[in-house]
Amino acid sequence: MKQIITSVFLLAFSLLTSAQTPDSVIIKKISDEIFVSGQCYQDLRHLCKKIGARLTGSVNAEKAVYWTYNLMKSYNFDTVYLQEVMVPHWVRGEKEIGKVINGLSGSETLVNITALGGSIATPPQGISAEIVEVKDFDELKKLGEQGVKGKIVFYNHPFDVRMIMPFSMYGEAGKYRYIGASEAARYGAVGSIVRSMTNYINDYPNTGAQGYNDSLPKIPCCAISTLDAEWLSGELKKDTEKKGAGAKTKFYLKMTCETLPDVKSYNVIGELRGTEHPEEIIDVGGHLDSWDLAEGAHDDGTGVMQSIEVLRVLKKIGVKPKRTIRAVMFMNEENGLKGGEEYAKQAELKKEKHILAMEADAGGFTPRGFSMSMDEDKKTKIRKWEKLFQPYGAWDFTKKGGGADIGPLGKKLGVPMMGFSPDNQRYFIIHHTAQDVFEQVNKRELEMGAIVMTMMIYLVSEYGL
Amino acid sequence: MKQIITSVFLLAFSLLTSAQTPDSVIIKKISDEIFVSGQCYQDLRHLCKKIGARLTGSVNAEKAVYWTYNLMKSYNFDTVYLQEVMVPHWVRGEKEIGKVINGLSGSETLVNITALGGSIATPPQGISAEIVEVKDFDELKKLGEQGVKGKIVFYNHPFDVRMIMPFSMYGEAGKYRYIGASEAARYGAVGSIVRSMTNYINDYPNTGAQGYNDSLPKIPCCAISTLDAEWLSGELKKDTEKKGAGAKTKFYLKMTCETLPDVKSYNVIGELRGTEHPEEIIDVGGHLDSWDLAEGAHDDGTGVMQSIEVLRVLKKIGVKPKRTIRAVMFMNEENGLKGGEEYAKQAELKKEKHILAMEADAGGFTPRGFSMSMDEDKKTKIRKWEKLFQPYGAWDFTKKGGGADIGPLGKKLGVPMMGFSPDNQRYFIIHHTAQDVFEQVNKRELEMGAIVMTMMIYLVSEYGL
Repeated sequence: MKQIITSVFLLAFSLLTSAQTPDSVIIKKISDEIFVSGQCYQDLRHLCKKIGARLTGSVNAEKAVYWTYNLMKSYNFDTVYLQEVMVPHWVRGEKEIGKVINGLSGSETLVNITALGGSIATPPQGISAEIVEVKDFDELKKLGEQGVKGKIVFYNHPFDVRMIMPFSMYGEAGKYRYIGASEAARYGAVGSIVRSMTNYINDYPNTGAQGYNDSLPKIPCCAISTLDAEWLSGELKKDTEKKGAGAKTKFYLKMTCETLPDVKSYNVIGELRGTEHPEEIIDVGGHLDSWDLAEGAHDDGTGVMQSIEVLRVLKKIGVKPKRTIRAVMFMNEENGLKGGEEYAKQAELKKEKHILAMEADAGGFTPRGFSMSMDEDKKTKIRKWEKLFQPYGAWDFTKKGGGADIGPLGKKLGVPMMGFSPDNQRYFIIHHTAQDVFEQVNKRELEMGAIVMTMMIYLVSEYGL
Repeated sequence: MKQIITSVFLLAFSLLTSAQTPDSVIIKKISDEIFVSGQCYQDLRHLCKKIGARLTGSVNAEKAVYWTYNLMKSYNFDTVYLQEVMVPHWVRGEKEIGKVINGLSGSETLVNITALGGSIATPPQGISAEIVEVKDFDELKKLGEQGVKGKIVFYNHPFDVRMIMPFSMYGEAGKYRYIGASEAARYGAVGSIVRSMTNYINDYPNTGAQGYNDSLPKIPCCAISTLDAEWLSGELKKDTEKKGAGAKTKFYLKMTCETLPDVKSYNVIGELRGTEHPEEIIDVGGHLDSWDLAEGAHDDGTGVMQSIEVLRVLKKIGVKPKRTIRAVMFMNEENGLKGGEEYAKQAELKKEKHILAMEADAGGFTPRGFSMSMDEDKKTKIRKWEKLFQPYGAWDFTKKGGGADIGPLGKKLGVPMMGFSPDNQRYFIIHHTAQDVFEQVNKRELEMGAIVMTMMIYLVSEYGL
């Protein structure tokens, strides 16, 4: 590509300069500040490399609370405070052990597994049981107690790669992680293994929350990497096809995870006070907690750092917002949502008027647009700003959606919700795996997201909804 | 991000199923075939890992010609043939040596440099001269012969990161690489160094074509990595500020590059014959040659493999195109454009009727749209198909542009041109550097591009322009 595309430059330049409305002047300032002197990438580096994994209840989660609190203080936001919330405290324990035991030779092969969040431990000596593969709940049901009792169920349900959006694949397959253990226990299974939630074939198992059905026995559950899932499925096929009923493959599983008593933690909140309508609050946030396997870079360090950047930049370029803007670092999105619930509860108690809540929790990739859950007239108002976002590639204002942490605000208080929507084709390389590290985040992509988020928050603070 | 976004899935699904026109059925087939059984990623792996760097005139370029020829044969395209073209044969020679020599202590520091394509060699013993930094041609002109003669000019012109699109930054800064050497020679410089063409600060110098002005002396020229450019600039500042005129920093440069006699090479062409209007030809292509520092993965292995994929998929799903579709692997885009020129020349000689030429040479990232250089009525026709592309994120049909290789078709024969436009925020991480390797390409992103390219070529083959 040696061609020098002057036309592209001219077009981009003219889009920014042709209509010098006050808004476009502010937007250019936002853009320049972030591209030239943006802090979110360096801040993210600190969060990832100096603090790292920060599962709810952990020491690192606490460190992250105080660090973000001090960071926002250092940026001189009008108010910075902590909002107390009791959170669950699940710990993974020792590195899990998963082994496939050949039914004929007895030889053992280690596979890459990770306990699902909230899982109980195996007995200290582990469990060893025949393994039975199912593709979905229909197959499980057909096997019934006769086919499942005393065994370990292996859900091998691949992402449907025919879907365009990886989040759609996740939406379709996620139930096998979330309720798979209890559904297997319904038929007497002693353990449950789920194929990792990703469209990539690799060695990195994806953890994630699962929820036991309290009316059923609790059994240990884990995820297996996609590469090992494919291999295991092949082994089991050999079982069925060649060895006869007497030589069943077994699985050995050992996990020491544990749910400890709830602990005190915090949502971390920073605020720029509105000059004309301080009572009207605009939220922008992400979740401060992360899974424990990596650094929580894309999930959700990027969303957290972009949210703080929104306020930092507006202050830096001298915008005095008409309405109050709050950056909210929610605690415990990954395995409880206690922070999001507490935030909504306090908003209700204090009779706060939240006019918009935006969540950034879909990775720090190039922006594609914003999803919205709100009345049509509000959507219409927002869509009138679309052209301002198009030079940044954020053009898609069609989808419905908000976010998990702001969900309680939306559901309980009817707050209009918006989700920052970046490109997501690479998201499931990293999601809930040991690969979710700082190096996976591209500086420019992160900055582009911070810019369009700041633009949107600025416009809503100027014009209301 | 644990939330299961069913709404996104439903939306994507309904977009694909709500209007079951014949076109949408074909498009779904194209999409499924590429997502489930696509070959372009594996083919790219072969091109990058089994062949590798393929600078025009090299043995690898020849290997790439025969491999792509046989690949298209194996896919049973209606016609596959080679189009002879004489191409330049520049070779880099031994690894370049660049050293900064401290004016006071005489200590030497190696820096990361790479010869620019087409540069002459230094004398065998290298050259050593005082170095003078300029930010742009204005500064060079002000220094004039008095300030430049006998010295090495160091163009330290960073990408302007305030621009949204990296290609715009490249468009603005590229002249210092392309004509910098001759402009420095105009004032008597003995060598020229250009800051690498990238917005990333790293250790990888970017090579690329440069063109001597034949009326001026030829001097050796290279690029220096951005990290070393920043460091060198700091060293030179110390010079100016602290050491006085007697302790100037020098630069030692040794390069053994050489321009050998032209050699015979080929454009590689595969064709699906049109059933209704075989005389109307639609081109889709990229360039088969690459720079020699890496594997030419994004530049332009992806474009080449996506172009072949277009024809493979249409054949595989049983589409018999109404118009003739040609995949063209151009030779010598990087340092001569001889393949593109020859292709247009032959089209003119044979009085071929080309109704559209599409070029994919901007990386294998997620699609954003297509640039167009053609009459307004044709653009209007194409824009009517926009909605079909939007689910794939390819929504931008506003920009002007085509491509370097199809440029001669457009300029000489007035053929309507179109450029495949992917996201480009990550492009200058890899562009013309040792980092342009297969591992930088994401499978899904590559496939998304192949899908929208196939869709566009299919629609034009059905409806003409």
